[in-house]
Amino acid sequence: MEKTIRELTVRVREFCEARDWDQFHGPKDLAIGVITEASELLEHFRFQSDEQALALLNDPKIKEEIEDELADVLFFLLRFSQLFDVDLTKALLRKIEKSEKKYPVEKAKGKNTKYTKL
Amino acid sequence: MEKTIRELTVRVREFCEARDWDQFHGPKDLAIGVITEASELLEHFRFQSDEQALALLNDPKIKEEIEDELADVLFFLLRFSQLFDVDLTKALLRKIEKSEKKYPVEKAKGKNTKYTKL
Amino acid sequence: MEKTIRELTVRVREFCEARDWDQFHGPKDLAIGVITEASELLEHFRFQSDEQALALLNDPKIKEEIEDELADVLFFLLRFSQLFDVDLTKALLRKIEKSEKKYPVEKAKGKNTKYTKL
Amino acid sequence: MEKTIRELTVRVREFCEARDWDQFHGPKDLAIGVITEASELLEHFRFQSDEQALALLNDPKIKEEIEDELADVLFFLLRFSQLFDVDLTKALLRKIEKSEKKYPVEKAKGKNTKYTKL
Repeated sequence: MEKTIRELTVRVREFCEARDWDQFHGPKDLAIGVITEASELLEHFRFQSDEQALALLNDPKIKEEIEDELADVLFFLLRFSQLFDVDLTKALLRKIEKSEKKYPVEKAKGKNTKYTKL
Repeated sequence: MEKTIRELTVRVREFCEARDWDQFHGPKDLAIGVITEASELLEHFRFQSDEQALALLNDPKIKEEIEDELADVLFFLLRFSQLFDVDLTKALLRKIEKSEKKYPVEKAKGKNTKYTKL
Repeated sequence: MEKTIRELTVRVREFCEARDWDQFHGPKDLAIGVITEASELLEHFRFQSDEQALALLNDPKIKEEIEDELADVLFFLLRFSQLFDVDLTKALLRKIEKSEKKYPVEKAKGKNTKYTKL
Repeated sequence: MEKTIRELTVRVREFCEARDWDQFHGPKDLAIGVITEASELLEHFRFQSDEQALALLNDPKIKEEIEDELADVLFFLLRFSQLFDVDLTKALLRKIEKSEKKYPVEKAKGKNTKYTKL
């Protein structure tokens, strides 16, 4: 399915505005939204080996639950961006450019080392 | 800036593949990526009142830091979706439809109550 | 009730060993245990104003749920410390001494500023 | 080192009161304290295999950093308990009793399955 970040943001905004939820959506609460949904994503893999974690994605019911958690995190990212005037597309592209400098290919290739230790 | 989720995903994939990072990007580690970046977003608002949290967004330097954290969370969402075959656009739209049933406008309007208690 | 960290750790260890759970309790998984339980604690306060958050603690049922989440976080801290040979009491006292240097009273008093900006 | 939860709590309280920090320590902000420190703990293991995660604990410098993160999480648990009148020892013992019912030895032994699926 093809949608821009901007189109998805409109969908999120309409959902929230229809419920009159602007009043609850300060930056602090939306950041809490992001992390609590991120935790529900992570919880699927708790105490699972890497092999078991991968295998979970082959179970259609669990796969859908995981997709729902990814969607919940994205929802709050888009909502934050909409309310506080962040161009998330631009932010992502700029951040990847920064990361290209922090993780130059010749140094970072094949390594799981943090840039501060490269 | 106008990009689809798919276009942004290509950018993320190219960045990671150039560094040969597929080997580190299992679902469990990417979920850890999402939550640790979500925490860096939240940390900006720690011990700040709601008014102070809002005011932070008026400081261009802090605003850019916050945008970088939002971008980092999105980066790992896109990477997870790319590697494990999730259509994130479809997932978001489906999840909002589910939420419309859990939070019907006539019940949820103006309330910060969880759907289980509506 | 009066128990030392060491006595509580014995209780946690016995619970886990009776279930043969050492095999699942690597440091990474226990750190995931800590953060996912921390998220359940935080979720109680999501979209609640500071006043509402305080009021939740006056509801005995919710108070008990919150206490259970605090206990779950502590459980994984103790388990981590037991398996990987951390003296948590000593670690806490040492960390507070470090914090006394990072946050000297004359500078930090009445301020919610991070030490890097004091 | 032998200290009760109560003794450690006194130490935490004195540190915070000397800095006049009660005003910043509502339940929501302390829960944010817990999760952001939990994330710094987890970050040590990000993109590390289970073997690498274990090996980190053999490096004295990294071991001390990890101990500091465990201490930071405990700090906020104790502070929350102190301010909002939670007997954390009692809470832990009660929660383990609940878990003994949710995870009976004969069903849970050697399994990493959530109690809802046992």
